[in-house]
Order: sequence, then structure tokens, then C-alpha cells
Amino acid sequence: MILTVTLNTALDLTYRVPALLPHASHRVSEVTERPGGKGLNVARVLAALGHEVTATGFAGGATGRAVRERLAAVPGVVDALLPVAGATRRTVAVVDERSGDTTQLNEPGPSVGPAEWAAFQRAYGELVASASAVALCGSLPPGVPVGAYAGLIRVARAAGVPVLLDTGGEPLRRGVAARPDIVKPNAEELAELTGSHEPLQATRDARRRGAHAVVASLGPDGLLAVTPEGRWRAAPPARVRGNPTGAGDSAVAGLLSGLADHLPWPDRLARAVALSTATVLAPVAGEFSRTTYENLLPRTRVTSEAGAA
Amino acid sequence: MILTVTLNTALDLTYRVPALLPHASHRVSEVTERPGGKGLNVARVLAALGHEVTATGFAGGATGRAVRERLAAVPGVVDALLPVAGATRRTVAVVDERSGDTTQLNEPGPSVGPAEWAAFQRAYGELVASASAVALCGSLPPGVPVGAYAGLIRVARAAGVPVLLDTGGEPLRRGVAARPDIVKPNAEELAELTGSHEPLQATRDARRRGAHAVVASLGPDGLLAVTPEGRWRAAPPARVRGNPTGAGDSAVAGLLSGLADHLPWPDRLARAVALSTATVLAPVAGEFSRTTYENLLPRTRVTSEAGAA
Repeated sequence: MILTVTLNTALDLTYRVPALLPHASHRVSEVTERPGGKGLNVARVLAALGHEVTATGFAGGATGRAVRERLAAVPGVVDALLPVAGATRRTVAVVDERSGDTTQLNEPGPSVGPAEWAAFQRAYGELVASASAVALCGSLPPGVPVGAYAGLIRVARAAGVPVLLDTGGEPLRRGVAARPDIVKPNAEELAELTGSHEPLQATRDARRRGAHAVVASLGPDGLLAVTPEGRWRAAPPARVRGNPTGAGDSAVAGLLSGLADHLPWPDRLARAVALSTATVLAPVAGEFSRTTYENLLPRTRVTSEAGAA
Repeated sequence: MILTVTLNTALDLTYRVPALLPHASHRVSEVTERPGGKGLNVARVLAALGHEVTATGFAGGATGRAVRERLAAVPGVVDALLPVAGATRRTVAVVDERSGDTTQLNEPGPSVGPAEWAAFQRAYGELVASASAVALCGSLPPGVPVGAYAGLIRVARAAGVPVLLDTGGEPLRRGVAARPDIVKPNAEELAELTGSHEPLQATRDARRRGAHAVVASLGPDGLLAVTPEGRWRAAPPARVRGNPTGAGDSAVAGLLSGLADHLPWPDRLARAVALSTATVLAPVAGEFSRTTYENLLPRTRVTSEAGAA
């Protein structure tokens, strides 16, 4: 199975309103609720592709119960979330029906105590032993040490299990130094890590800092991958417009799916780009259509780049 | 005991953000959760004044469980909420820390089925028998017939229990015709009911439509009461600035508290205005300070108006 880790899970709410006006009162015309946090999004996409997935991390309070109830309704994802005394955070995406734009409100998440963090590390160690790959995704909740991902990467590497890291800021900086197999920063996270806004230079620099392979997501331009096997750019057949929510998580799922199926890098990147593009095109944020994905997959352009990786 | 009815309860969330910017992403710096819906607000204020209160209405889903858990922590309120299959709505108040202004997002609430509505009516009939007064408060959730309050008023009157109605629109129009003892519309609800924007004329018209007493809330100007015993205006000692959230519910609690204590109208109105003003002045929306209330009470101005009621 593939193991996804979401330390700061969320109950993702989407509110549709005719028009968002600051300081006014709004009647929400439509409410959707789904389990959220990057790792849970990755797990859902992997399950939709037919992989066995186990999702771990923390869930607590009434919102945590709601996350677990909704996760139980997703076929193919095994719930291995651990309890936390505080309540799982909510995120609220307010969609303005007039403009189509989204305003995002993110709660900070519950504080994780030392005993809760220790319990997670024990459970993670056991789960890693039967995993074919591990994804560590998203922000750290309050109370979890900033070097948390670095420690979890070392455990996976000691067990010989490939590990992907998708986070930003100091947790990314420390995590990269622990030599993960893949990191998937976006352009902003990559620039913050390396100080360079030039994607190729920044991607190479991220490898020098310890990551075996770096897959940078460049928004509508697709992916830039610098790996021990070579260097590639992967892009959708045409630039698309839509809702980018969850597109990065779908790219992570594509990379892991290809890794688990022992595909070469160009095929992994094609899956990542096709899934990510299908997610942008889907009417519901973070969802994707299987048909759109299968149509896009053979048309995704992956080009090898010359020069040293 | 005093019975409060909240057919559309809510989990009220308050989010503090440094500044609300449409189409941006916001980290919420502080989250507060409380049980909401007008009738639950009234129940909480009555309990704080030392009255025995029973709160009925509907609660369902994870949000309904959260409402009940938090209601259980309020001393003096007996939870007689009935289950509903759908999930209780949330309301989100986004407070902009820069301007102090609030942007409100209200979910519509769960649909109530015919069997659930019938179960409520049975439970209400039993509760009314041991009530000293009844308050019917707030909007109707989807599925509850628009004449619902009119029916509940007739049941209370048949049992000889005084009944107060605080709602708007068509439920108010139908409710008034069922001859409630008191209605407490705000200026907007009163104008919608009567077609008149002149408070005294509109208040008299609302009485002619069936209400025994009409107490109109006129925002910072206080209350205008037209009753079988006379006509009064009641106002705070000075105009105050603050957050008006919950001020109307505190006024309802003051009226019911005075009714339950068999006070004459001027003393009921003084309680209503002092509680309402203390609520506007409180730092947390919908709360009030007992000390502020007790300081304001003797300084509230209640003046009798000449002429036929």
C-alpha cells in the first residue's frame, strides 16, 4: 500500500454565494463538505486510480469525526488517523458566483501535544514497514516540531521505502536535508528554499541540498523534474483555465502512482501532469474526471532536456 | 420554566482575520464556536439571569452534536432539542481586525421532513404544558410549513401560556394572525409586515393584525411598546457603539424575564433595553456583562406616551 501522512487534516467547506461583499450578510446558496489536507487529497486520487492507500495523521473533535465519516465513504482509503485532543481545523472557500473567484479562510488547526506526537511516531514506524511508498504532505499543526518531516523521512529511508515530501518553509528546508527521494515544491516554495526565482537553477540547488529528485510545479507551465536519471519538462497539451485547488495534490498522486507501478520518470511525469490538468478542469474543486484524465494522458508532452541533471 | 423554540439552530463560528480581502487566502488568527440561533441565544441570557429554561427545536449531524455539547456547558439550560436527519447549519462571522467590521456567511440549514416536524409538534405540546412562557424565535428551516409559528402559538394559547414571537416575513405575518401575546419585530420586519416605515403607525397596525402587544426594536433608539396596558418608549441612558449581534435576542430575554417575574410593562422594557445595551457593549458578540447590565438597568429611560394605545 501507499501511505499518505496529513498531520494537519481539515474539514474543507465550500460556500457558494451570489457575490461576496465585505461587511454584508450573505445567505450561502450551496455548501459542500469534504475531508481535506493535502495528504488526504493525495490519498483520494490514488484510490480513484485503483491503488491501495492508507491515510494517517491526526483527527480530533467534532470536525475530526466529520472528516473520518466522510473519509469512510471514499472507497479504497484505509483510515489510520490518530486521535488528537484538539479539534481538526476547518477551511472555508467562499466562491463568488459572479466572478468565479474564491476567498479562502483557513483555521490554524489544533495544537498537538508531546504524547500525541510520540504516539504518531510509533504508529508511523509500524505503517511504514508495510508501505511501498510514503507521501508527507502539507503544513505542520502547532506543537509538532519543525524538524518533524526530517525525522519521518529518515524512518522511511531506514526501512528502504521511497518517500516524497510536499511542504514549504522551514519544514521543507529541514526535510530536504534528510535526503527524501522526491520533493515537489511549487515555484514559490522553491524560491523560498533556494533564494532563486529561476526554476532550473533553483531545482538543481534543491537537489544539491539533499533531495534525490526534485519535481517543481510551475502552475499552467506544468512540471520541471531534475532526477538522477535525467531532466524533463512535462506540460499539458494546451494551457487550461479552471480552479487550481488540489492540482498540486493530484500531481503528487500521479508521481506516487507511477513510482508504485515502477514506471520510468517520463511516464510518472505524464501521469502527474494529466491528473493535475484534469483537476483544474473539473467543475468541483479538487475532484477530477477519469475520462478527462485518460484523454489527456497520451497528449501530455514530456521532453527530455540536455545537459547534466 | 421558560420554553424557547429554535427550529433553525446553528453552530455560530467567529473568525478573526487581520483584514478581509476578497479573492485572497487568509489565515484565521482566532476561532470561537458557540451554539446559535435566536432561541438558543435567548435561552442563554435567561439562564444567566437565573431563570429555569428549556430549549427545544432541531439539531442534527456533526454540527448538531457540537451545538448540543456546547449547550450542555451552559448552566441552567435544559436541552430538549429533537434529532433531525440533516446537519445543523453553521454561521460564520468574519471579523476584520483592522476595521472592526463583520462579514456574515449563513448556511441555509437542514431540510426537516414531515415525520420530524410531526415529532416536534408532539414534543412541543408536552413541553408547553409545564412552561410559564414560550418564545418562538428565528427563521424556519426548509421543510417546515410557513404557518408553523401560527400553529405553535395556538397550542400555547390553548394551554393558557403566554407566547412571544420573534421572526420576520411570511412566518411573522401568519403568526401575528394567530394572536400571540407579544411580537418583537425590528424596524425592517415591522415595515415588511405593515407596509409602513413610521414606527408608531406600523406598531399600531401590527396590533390590529392580531398581536396583543407589539414591542418594536429601533436599534440604538431602543424600544417602542404598544400594549393593552399602555404605550411606552424605552431607551438606554446614552447612545452606545458596539457590536449589535444578539442585541435583539437579549431584548427578548429581558421581556420574557420580566413577564415570568410578573413585572409591569415599564420594568419589563427596562430589563430588555439594559440587557440589549449591555450586549452591544460586550467585547464578545452576543455575550453580556452582568455588571454592565446592573449598572444600566436603573439608568434606562422608560417614558409613557399619551394617547390611545
